[in-house]
This record gives sequence, C-alpha cells and structure tokens, in this order.
Amino acid sequence: MANSNEKGDRRERELTNWLDGNGWAVMRAPASGSATARELPDVLAGNGETFYAIEAKSSSGDPIYLTDEEVDALCYFAENFGAEARIAARFDLENGDPSYGDDDRKGWYFIPVGDLYETPGGNYRVKKELAHEKGVPEVEL
Amino acid sequence: MANSNEKGDRRERELTNWLDGNGWAVMRAPASGSATARELPDVLAGNGETFYAIEAKSSSGDPIYLTDEEVDALCYFAENFGAEARIAARFDLENGDPSYGDDDRKGWYFIPVGDLYETPGGNYRVKKELAHEKGVPEVEL
Repeated sequence: MANSNEKGDRRERELTNWLDGNGWAVMRAPASGSATARELPDVLAGNGETFYAIEAKSSSGDPIYLTDEEVDALCYFAENFGAEARIAARFDLENGDPSYGDDDRKGWYFIPVGDLYETPGGNYRVKKELAHEKGVPEVEL
Repeated sequence: MANSNEKGDRRERELTNWLDGNGWAVMRAPASGSATARELPDVLAGNGETFYAIEAKSSSGDPIYLTDEEVDALCYFAENFGAEARIAARFDLENGDPSYGDDDRKGWYFIPVGDLYETPGGNYRVKKELAHEKGVPEVEL
C-alpha cells in the first residue's frame, strides 16, 4: 500500500511529523514493504489510549479512489492489531480556501472507513467535500 | 535502533514472520529510520489486546549489551504509543541444546525491560541464562 510517488512520500512525512508533534507515537511502514506477505498500513499511530492504522492518500484536487482490496487489507490489519482504520486524505491547498487556512492538521483529514463512499463497482471514493464533512474524528487527532 | 547487520536483519525477519504466524499483526521499522527524529523500536506487534514495542537482538552466544540510550528510547516510544517494552533476544542454536529443541519461538525470548541486568556503568546486559529464565512473558507471545 506504500505510495512510491515522491510527492506522496513527502506528504506522508509531513503527516507523520504532524502526528509526532501532536502527541502521537508513530511508525511508518517500510518503503520496501513488510517482512511478511501481509499488506501494511502506511502509518501506525498510538497515544497511549487510541491506536490508528492509517492509509494516507493525497490528491491535487481530484477525488481519491481506493480499491476494495486496499480497504480490506487496511481493515484486516487494523482489526488484528487492535487499531481503528482511518483514511488520511489530503487535498492540495488552494489559495484562499478558508477551510484550510487555520487548520493545523496541514490539510489532512482522518476519515473512518465506514464513512467512505462506496462506488457501484465496489471500490471507494473520497471527495474533498466528504473529507471536510466526515474527516474530523471523534477523538481529537 | 535498526540493526544494519545482514544476519541480524535475517533474524529479525524470522522473528517478524514467527509473530505473524502466531496471531500478531506486525510492523517492522523502516531500515532508513523514521520520518521524524525519534528512535523507533525494531518491531511493533499487536493482537487486538496487547501491544508490544520490541527491540530485537541476536547473538552467536556472547551476552547481549544494550546502551542506556537504547533502552530509554524503547521505553519512551512504548509509553507514548501505549505498548509494553520488550527485548527480543536470540542466542544461536547450539547442537543438542535441549532448551531450544522444541521451541516454536525459533529461539527468541521476550524479556520485560525491568528484568534486564543493569551493569555498574548504567547499561544493560542479557545473558543467555537470563533470557531463558525471564524470557517467557506473562502473556503467551
């Protein structure tokens, strides 16, 4: 599930650093994948009480699509580990977009898997609007 | 804390695979280290109830030494994340050693940090005997 895209990698580092700076202990998955055959989430985060298995996706503005397999693998790992599954979605900052201006999450929204939109083909989609609407978790992340 | 030694890396993969095969969801730290400045444990493991931050050390037989800084960093991450800190210690199999013969943990012993021997200089040591004596955690690992 690792994002080999350079910009995606940079964004994921920003996410990790933001989590680290906000009280979370964080481990990113190895770029070369796991030692086992299992798919890994991009990031594991814990704060002593809550644990998140996170799949990170950034976009220049278009909707983000996730395959059924990606979401299943995330949920499988999360359940086995004992973490909650979240999609971290980030849409590039637009000049003057007021919904990003004062957001210290650097534009990342954390979306519970159950709130993803399921496409007729059985995959999943995150639009920017959905991220903004559903992307504030019950726990302050 | 990553072990750049090739044999150590192979041993750590064996450990990860063994954990994976025994009901644990496992993530190894990236070889190139974290995105943040934090030291990471070698392995994070969870089974839905229990979480371990693991520092893995293998030896051909000599005692294993850990610096004060290594142990402190492991405990710091473990506490922030919400995991228990364990040293996974493995001493190479000796022919005919009865304590290894039927051990499906492949020779790895999981030692609570509080059971490490503290040297007069303030570092920590694991002898094979201590690993065998203390290396069975209260939770079946």
